[in-house]
Amino acid sequence: MVEGTMMDVPLTLKYLLERARTLFPRSEIVSRAADKALHRSTFGDLYPRACKLANALTRLGVKPGDRVATLCWNHTRHVEAYLAVPCMGAVLHTLNLRLHPSDLTYIAGHAGDSVVIVDSSLLPLLDKFVKDVPSIRHVIVVADGGAAPAGTLDYEALLAAEEGSFPFPDLAEGTPAAICYTSGTTGHPKGVVYTHRSTMLHTLAVCMADTMGIRGQDTLLPVVPMFHVNAWGIPFAALLTGAKLVFAGPHLDPEGLLDLMASERVTFAAGVPTIWLGILAHLDREPRRWDLGRLERMVVGGSAAPPSMIDGFSRRHGITVMHAWGMTETSPIGTTAKLRPIHDDLDDEQKLAVRSSQGYAAPLVETRSRGEDGRVLPWDGKSMGELEVRGPWVAGAYLGGEGKDRFTDDGWFRTGDVVTIDADGYVRICDRTKDVIKSGGEWISSVELENALMSHAAVLEAAVFAGRHPKWDERPIAAVVWKPGAKATEAELRAHLKGKFASFWEPDLFIEVEAIPKTSTGKFLKTKLRELYGDRLLDR
Amino acid sequence: MVEGTMMDVPLTLKYLLERARTLFPRSEIVSRAADKALHRSTFGDLYPRACKLANALTRLGVKPGDRVATLCWNHTRHVEAYLAVPCMGAVLHTLNLRLHPSDLTYIAGHAGDSVVIVDSSLLPLLDKFVKDVPSIRHVIVVADGGAAPAGTLDYEALLAAEEGSFPFPDLAEGTPAAICYTSGTTGHPKGVVYTHRSTMLHTLAVCMADTMGIRGQDTLLPVVPMFHVNAWGIPFAALLTGAKLVFAGPHLDPEGLLDLMASERVTFAAGVPTIWLGILAHLDREPRRWDLGRLERMVVGGSAAPPSMIDGFSRRHGITVMHAWGMTETSPIGTTAKLRPIHDDLDDEQKLAVRSSQGYAAPLVETRSRGEDGRVLPWDGKSMGELEVRGPWVAGAYLGGEGKDRFTDDGWFRTGDVVTIDADGYVRICDRTKDVIKSGGEWISSVELENALMSHAAVLEAAVFAGRHPKWDERPIAAVVWKPGAKATEAELRAHLKGKFASFWEPDLFIEVEAIPKTSTGKFLKTKLRELYGDRLLDR
Repeated sequence: MVEGTMMDVPLTLKYLLERARTLFPRSEIVSRAADKALHRSTFGDLYPRACKLANALTRLGVKPGDRVATLCWNHTRHVEAYLAVPCMGAVLHTLNLRLHPSDLTYIAGHAGDSVVIVDSSLLPLLDKFVKDVPSIRHVIVVADGGAAPAGTLDYEALLAAEEGSFPFPDLAEGTPAAICYTSGTTGHPKGVVYTHRSTMLHTLAVCMADTMGIRGQDTLLPVVPMFHVNAWGIPFAALLTGAKLVFAGPHLDPEGLLDLMASERVTFAAGVPTIWLGILAHLDREPRRWDLGRLERMVVGGSAAPPSMIDGFSRRHGITVMHAWGMTETSPIGTTAKLRPIHDDLDDEQKLAVRSSQGYAAPLVETRSRGEDGRVLPWDGKSMGELEVRGPWVAGAYLGGEGKDRFTDDGWFRTGDVVTIDADGYVRICDRTKDVIKSGGEWISSVELENALMSHAAVLEAAVFAGRHPKWDERPIAAVVWKPGAKATEAELRAHLKGKFASFWEPDLFIEVEAIPKTSTGKFLKTKLRELYGDRLLDR
Repeated sequence: MVEGTMMDVPLTLKYLLERARTLFPRSEIVSRAADKALHRSTFGDLYPRACKLANALTRLGVKPGDRVATLCWNHTRHVEAYLAVPCMGAVLHTLNLRLHPSDLTYIAGHAGDSVVIVDSSLLPLLDKFVKDVPSIRHVIVVADGGAAPAGTLDYEALLAAEEGSFPFPDLAEGTPAAICYTSGTTGHPKGVVYTHRSTMLHTLAVCMADTMGIRGQDTLLPVVPMFHVNAWGIPFAALLTGAKLVFAGPHLDPEGLLDLMASERVTFAAGVPTIWLGILAHLDREPRRWDLGRLERMVVGGSAAPPSMIDGFSRRHGITVMHAWGMTETSPIGTTAKLRPIHDDLDDEQKLAVRSSQGYAAPLVETRSRGEDGRVLPWDGKSMGELEVRGPWVAGAYLGGEGKDRFTDDGWFRTGDVVTIDADGYVRICDRTKDVIKSGGEWISSVELENALMSHAAVLEAAVFAGRHPKWDERPIAAVVWKPGAKATEAELRAHLKGKFASFWEPDLFIEVEAIPKTSTGKFLKTKLRELYGDRLLDR
């Protein structure tokens, strides 16, 4: 018998802190403040400031395991918290400033946050819930235009009083590093607790050529907020590689982002489809206004990107959009849609179809799909089932043991997405499990029907949902909003769908509506549609 | 207190086996056999064949922890052993076919190998030591032109008798996976035992954009042998990404390699400087003979590459050569010499100097250098000290606890290389610790003096070594071999060195020799030079 002889070096975020300090002291961080001024600093500045923050938090009584929340836009000081809090052994909790105050009350209370670091521009939001969270002992205000009010602490004043060194402990790699909560469309939001190990492994993955390929030559603009799954790991990847970081602060309008991309010579940007749709529209309108010669690639995720957008960027502007899929529970990189040599002989349209899929499993991640009967489905590109994933940066539980039904007995996470998987492992999302239409034992994808309807010239928006049906259990109903001044007959819509799907997918009923009811984040609120119109097929 | 909620998924090679089978069944492996025929198979073929090999080895009595050796060139079946052996819980031991039989006797006996898988063309070598290694119970012959002789087993016949499935166990990530021995210029070779964890982390690192950047679109030609530190991890990286693998088998002549690169449309190749020097000479001679349009990058490591070679490839042939440094003890990726944005303003010569350095620490690796007094030296690009490294794929010990003096009390590995480290972390090797010349407490780099001397038009080879000196302890002596028909005076050589170094670096003595004595692997044998001429300065 032989024993391994390799060093026992735990994977902890302290490595990033030291690496950035020693190898990349000259790498830049650029942050746009609330007043639009650009704040410039370096990775060399980051280390002593993270030490000062750790000293200040220690002085405020923060101990290993304590939760320190942030309610901040993307900026340099947020990166300081990203490093100082986990490296001192505490747990970073990034609060989502887009949530309703009642959700924030619940989340901050559930996590037991003891300190909140908040942008002064977000104090009005904090004021709506901080008093209802008794665990919060201190509020530290990052003055981005305003001053710290009475009863709060000023971030810069706190740091100014501290030493620029801190004895960061040697932590076990399983130590909690950060918490994010799911947006929780059903029931309360649930907490996912990332460990140092899961975060470090995810950081390595983000820098791999087949995922985001982040490297030292890059200038990164994470448009995705730092309160969304750690900005998809991009700040950590920058620290690992020495890539320059650019933050837009609260200014997420397309024009402001394009200005920033051009002036800072951004090579890589990442965000949700709505951001890129706005940017594409601006680029199409004024294709020569911005010099984006250095911009090579954009990662789009968070929700499915329209193929026309992916195509538009590459065909009209020479920018590669990479489609990725992930969730809070997957840190978030789950799958990425890269072409492989097996696609060399496909035509442009077929290649676009591959690039518009959710892609195949990122390194160390595994995917499978299971039908309603629990059987693992074949990778045939047709069988629809719930996507399940597994991997070292995938949640195996929720904080407090909640939501046990989302985890299988054999150790997989149930994503709630209904997908097909093809023979090369490419995943395509058809629906959310709660929205898929179950017609006589067969599944119908509401998303695919909606996309087809919305490609009709007269249709502004279309939502397809399950109507209750006496014989088939459920049948599709389509709610349609016309474009201003436009209209189509039911026969015309049916003709438009014809040949695109099996005939049993065709909706039983088309309903004209003024607007599709939506959630606070802009997603179709199908529960409301079912409530209003779900019994229409029973009455006929 | 909160607990981490992430899945406990160990990092094991079984993941690669499953990933290659499920995601990349169509990825190709091309192997050139001893008779130069090209053998083609796919990752889809690999899985059942690895299962058959695992079944066959089990039938031969191989148990978890047992060592299974290979004595093979680079080819598909060697990859099967790379996967089957560690995944069944046994330990792969790749024997270096370039070693002397007495070393192989020692190494195979020290590792306690129980089975050897050997290419039939290498049976004459095996015959020279197998009888002296009593632990070897079975010899399995991969017939690459010859047949399995009596008393041995035929690889293909063994596999043909087995099932294409195997219950690969769920191993802990600290389980030993593979053993490599150092070449051991002093004393016996020493064993490094890689674990599943260290190998998987190293595989992730190899695929990162800033190291080798291996991705699914690549076609990889590891010219580096699979018995040299697992071919630098390239076969594992191919399995992780789905990249096509091309193996040259025993045919490592420049012309044969160039033919293979062109015909298989290789995008990435890796090997030692001597290989690339030969290839560069061929390309310079016949620049249009081979279509290398797809070849993007070459990694050169194993020993220091001449800047003129790095420059020649990129300037004359548009091929990027990446310089990397590593050792058996570092799995091997330790540092890589990539340019960063901080170098944007340098001129071509300065950039070449950066690219010709050993580079900066790979992700998860740490570097430092220490002087003779044990003090950690500043990163000033001048102070020379021994390079020490640390990281999760760096050895923390040798097999059997040998060579304890190579590991520091605070957990670093002493590389034996004398280096400088600059302010951005770029490491430059000046010497081996045993070859650096210690003159009155100051260190003189023999390697730099040799490179300068060899740039003189009359000098074919030059070796600089330490002569014993009554006052300064050691002083440099240069042994010079003239080019055929050429010669220079001592004054001319001194003039050639003038201004390139501090004046105290100048050799005290120049000796004309017919040839520099060399080791079996072609390195200068400075111990011999010291033995012959080391006292010359005492006599004067």
